[in-house]
Amino acid sequence: MLHAIVMAGGSGTRFWPASRAGLPKQLLPLAGAKTLLEDTVARLEGLVPPERMLVVTSQRLLPAVKKQLPRLPDTALVGEPCKRDTAPCVGLAALLVARHDPDATLAVIPSDHVIAPAATFRAALEQAADLVAESPGRLVTFGIKPTYPAESFGYIQQGAPLARPGGAAPAHAVARFKEKPPASVAREYLAAGNYLWNAGIFVWKAATILEALAARQPECLSRLETIVAAWDTPGREGVFDREFAAIKGISIDYAVLEHAPDVAVIEAPFAWDDLGGWSAVARQRGADAAGNTVVGRHLGIDSVRTIVHSRPDHLVVTLGLEDMLVVHTPDATLVADRGHEEAVRKVVAELEKRGWTEFL
Amino acid sequence: MLHAIVMAGGSGTRFWPASRAGLPKQLLPLAGAKTLLEDTVARLEGLVPPERMLVVTSQRLLPAVKKQLPRLPDTALVGEPCKRDTAPCVGLAALLVARHDPDATLAVIPSDHVIAPAATFRAALEQAADLVAESPGRLVTFGIKPTYPAESFGYIQQGAPLARPGGAAPAHAVARFKEKPPASVAREYLAAGNYLWNAGIFVWKAATILEALAARQPECLSRLETIVAAWDTPGREGVFDREFAAIKGISIDYAVLEHAPDVAVIEAPFAWDDLGGWSAVARQRGADAAGNTVVGRHLGIDSVRTIVHSRPDHLVVTLGLEDMLVVHTPDATLVADRGHEEAVRKVVAELEKRGWTEFL
Repeated sequence: MLHAIVMAGGSGTRFWPASRAGLPKQLLPLAGAKTLLEDTVARLEGLVPPERMLVVTSQRLLPAVKKQLPRLPDTALVGEPCKRDTAPCVGLAALLVARHDPDATLAVIPSDHVIAPAATFRAALEQAADLVAESPGRLVTFGIKPTYPAESFGYIQQGAPLARPGGAAPAHAVARFKEKPPASVAREYLAAGNYLWNAGIFVWKAATILEALAARQPECLSRLETIVAAWDTPGREGVFDREFAAIKGISIDYAVLEHAPDVAVIEAPFAWDDLGGWSAVARQRGADAAGNTVVGRHLGIDSVRTIVHSRPDHLVVTLGLEDMLVVHTPDATLVADRGHEEAVRKVVAELEKRGWTEFL
Repeated sequence: MLHAIVMAGGSGTRFWPASRAGLPKQLLPLAGAKTLLEDTVARLEGLVPPERMLVVTSQRLLPAVKKQLPRLPDTALVGEPCKRDTAPCVGLAALLVARHDPDATLAVIPSDHVIAPAATFRAALEQAADLVAESPGRLVTFGIKPTYPAESFGYIQQGAPLARPGGAAPAHAVARFKEKPPASVAREYLAAGNYLWNAGIFVWKAATILEALAARQPECLSRLETIVAAWDTPGREGVFDREFAAIKGISIDYAVLEHAPDVAVIEAPFAWDDLGGWSAVARQRGADAAGNTVVGRHLGIDSVRTIVHSRPDHLVVTLGLEDMLVVHTPDATLVADRGHEEAVRKVVAELEKRGWTEFL
């Protein structure tokens, strides 16, 4: 059976002050009326029923996640006691699912990407599940056709094409995973034509990923097994806290994928955006005739190519602005030149440095 | 005796959203810790006691004015039922003072200017009172030495110098009042050297200004007399409302000064700023090493020559800004290029046009 593991523990800093430590990107309605997490779960409707979903977030975010996903049973929500990157998250989810469905196939899906159309995405997951069914030890990942020499993504070098039925998205063996490259290397990848961005969306058997973790991260897996052994006991919380904290944080890519013998990549047939910042939000939401993208109450006078993110009850007036970003929240407002968008992360670092924790 | 008439009924639109219809410029702490009105009244301490002060504002602002001036008796506060420019305001104040002190000398002082040092200002008012004492029918005004060819001020052409005692500021007969000139004319005035800006600060006998109003604005004065006749009766409010509304609004400059035979102008020996906009605020408050002027909580990254006006509990972060203006209030935030500062008034006009009255 196909299960979905939704990874919702992220805590980005690119959307401050809209995003906060207690309200990260995936819990915000950045790209539309619903939050990215709500969209992520809704996108799976018809493919994976609620009882085969597992949303892994942090303990801190658990109440907010639960509120956004009222249709999921409590057992479908897991709150990690601390951040340990994606390998422990994926391992824990695989163990929890395998208890009831040892032959489970898992779709591992980030909760903070924009993906459309939903039906195409679901069909692509089914094709990935088919690739796993053909070769149960296979790990399947999705790659995005690069549109520019991005330095912020890992790349996947495609190897030999895999035979696919008619109508299916093209798939290849993965020749090699490449870490985030400098611009010059990214340009070479783009020119070569056989590189894809690593979207961080995976499909594999629970058993396969657990075997891989046993081989390459035995201590991690052993602690996860201890946690799951206590899962249905009164000691769950204490064991989870203690054992999870003792695990070394590592990404599933680095821990497993880069070393696995049979990895396939499907060229994503859906539109994908990891919403890396406010300009991506503007791209998703579109702009008015003046190039402005507005959420909330706004009056623009002589303002162009400006992103305004406020609320229905707070008026933002922009006067004579070009290529600016204004993000208003009740306790903090960011005004930035869009050319400095990458530096929004610096703001959070500076707030931490100054100890202005009430704004984090 | 010298009385002070503080004119506090103004409703500027240049400081929106900090200033609102119910909280205009003079009621804001724009230039320092105290509001402009508080500073205006404090500046007179030692020259005019509270019982010889009259603050004329609008009915709407009366509660706020009272709160800011707790040491003034209720009888010192007058709330006009509607706006009728300065002539009716000055006439009413003169009548009210003359009831108890028919020989009163009045210093008529706007409440929204920045003036320093206070002692120099008080000494200048005393010199003006001396000029009135020398020639009781004289109207005395203060002129500011122009520093640039301003188009936003009226000008006073100086005539023959008046003999003054040693140490007094120079005074001249007024040759002519000039309306706000276009830039080319303002440049001529500046080059001519014998023009001053009209600061709108006046000293004269109550009896003199009432005679002038009787001669030139008899209907206005007659209605004001009706109001004052009912002042200490239960009918005051109804008469005030009805008669004041029936008066034609006109400025005291246009109604009286431009036609008066004996007008003297003192070249102000004090620093003066009418605080015409946010850049004037920055001038008064000074700037940090990066040229930023900040009120409220602020974190600036790569930001220069930017004015931030917020509150202690709302953080404004500026990132990559140059020559910008950010004004935050609980329900509205303005972000403007400082090159568009003059257009801040357009914002209020646009809000009125759209019927977004909750932000006015």
